[in-house]
Amino acid sequence: MRGRLSIVGMGPGDPELLTVKAARVIGDSPCVAFFAKRGRPGHARGIAGERVNPEAELLRFEYPFTTELSVADPRYLADIETFYERCAGLLAERLASGVDVSLLCEGDPFFYGSAMYLFDRLRHEFPHQIIPGVTGMSGCWSAADLPFTHGDDVLQVLPGTLDRQLLAARLALGDAAVIMKVGGNFPKIRDALEAAGMLERAVYVEYGTMPGERIRPLSEIDPLAPDAPYFSMILVPGRQRPR
Amino acid sequence: MRGRLSIVGMGPGDPELLTVKAARVIGDSPCVAFFAKRGRPGHARGIAGERVNPEAELLRFEYPFTTELSVADPRYLADIETFYERCAGLLAERLASGVDVSLLCEGDPFFYGSAMYLFDRLRHEFPHQIIPGVTGMSGCWSAADLPFTHGDDVLQVLPGTLDRQLLAARLALGDAAVIMKVGGNFPKIRDALEAAGMLERAVYVEYGTMPGERIRPLSEIDPLAPDAPYFSMILVPGRQRPR
Repeated sequence: MRGRLSIVGMGPGDPELLTVKAARVIGDSPCVAFFAKRGRPGHARGIAGERVNPEAELLRFEYPFTTELSVADPRYLADIETFYERCAGLLAERLASGVDVSLLCEGDPFFYGSAMYLFDRLRHEFPHQIIPGVTGMSGCWSAADLPFTHGDDVLQVLPGTLDRQLLAARLALGDAAVIMKVGGNFPKIRDALEAAGMLERAVYVEYGTMPGERIRPLSEIDPLAPDAPYFSMILVPGRQRPR
Repeated sequence: MRGRLSIVGMGPGDPELLTVKAARVIGDSPCVAFFAKRGRPGHARGIAGERVNPEAELLRFEYPFTTELSVADPRYLADIETFYERCAGLLAERLASGVDVSLLCEGDPFFYGSAMYLFDRLRHEFPHQIIPGVTGMSGCWSAADLPFTHGDDVLQVLPGTLDRQLLAARLALGDAAVIMKVGGNFPKIRDALEAAGMLERAVYVEYGTMPGERIRPLSEIDPLAPDAPYFSMILVPGRQRPR
């Protein structure tokens, strides 16, 4: 008997925004794995809180670097590949001996989640289930009272790492947009939104659904402020037609 | 004391994919409202099942037509506006008399949800909260074992109502795509995916996370089959890079 791998979406941050299924599966798991940044307790682990069985084995997967190397850097690819191989190996040992494992993942696992790289390595060998979660963007537009996509709106999810012109061109093609990976890209993103005529509609959200939540019209954010935190995004709602 | 309006995301269909918060709020509500198509029990109501307090007042909002008129048809706008006004009025009566109301909404309320049109009419008058839900698309890509967006992928959510050339052009600009509103647009969407070189990567999902769930490579679906059901979508996963 091989164990089952459950990849569990933990939602946008508020522990009550976990699904009923996620809560059940986490509570039942004899082994709970999660990613964490160096020196941090692990965000997904924090959301799970006391739902984790106190007797469960905890596997903490610590990312091999604290500041992000460029994904184009060959050291990045080598390091991260070694890291994911090692994590998958640790999960495979438990699964092969018949232990069910939950791998916790912020937001929705298959929406920009690291868990996908372990899933790719284990999917053909072990039974598995993916438990979807509420995405960070849904958490943010709900917290911001911002009805987001309507009728035939096109939604684009864009990384803030795109260059200014490309970002402005893409924004102009759609109705609603979510810009992720804000960080040090804030001034560039602001310029692109202005060029696309979307600055007045844009909303900045940081720590959505979490302690420290901050929601402001983008036009009120100082473009020279320090880098935005990891949990931040920019939201441009779609066309609101009268109904 | 005015009552509070909770707009509650019900997730993609599986009743266990409700959030813990949604389950709590629905159980506590003395009045539960939901949309339904003519002659149907109401999909969101079905997901809530026995979580609704048996003593709660139920408000069933039946859409004024069974087959969709074009949104460009003036009768559509007039009918739907009258309908939303009436629904908002019924909610306002309860809220004004101090009754808390839950308005159930499939998926995530602010992601293409009808509840937004009632929110717009009530938001300035009554206290409210939006409880985000797992979207249908997250439910579908999870059910399909389809890791969806990676790293700096651009995601586009596109309505199948776009014309063929525009759809193909938009598809070619992004990495991952979700195509909603499949219905009778299936042959056109298939052509557009082929033109964009994405046919082989595309997956068709109907009734994702629900009874009757059906998941197939798009290339295996007969383009001349009858119209796809309302709960169907086409998924094109993003670029999978080695890691």
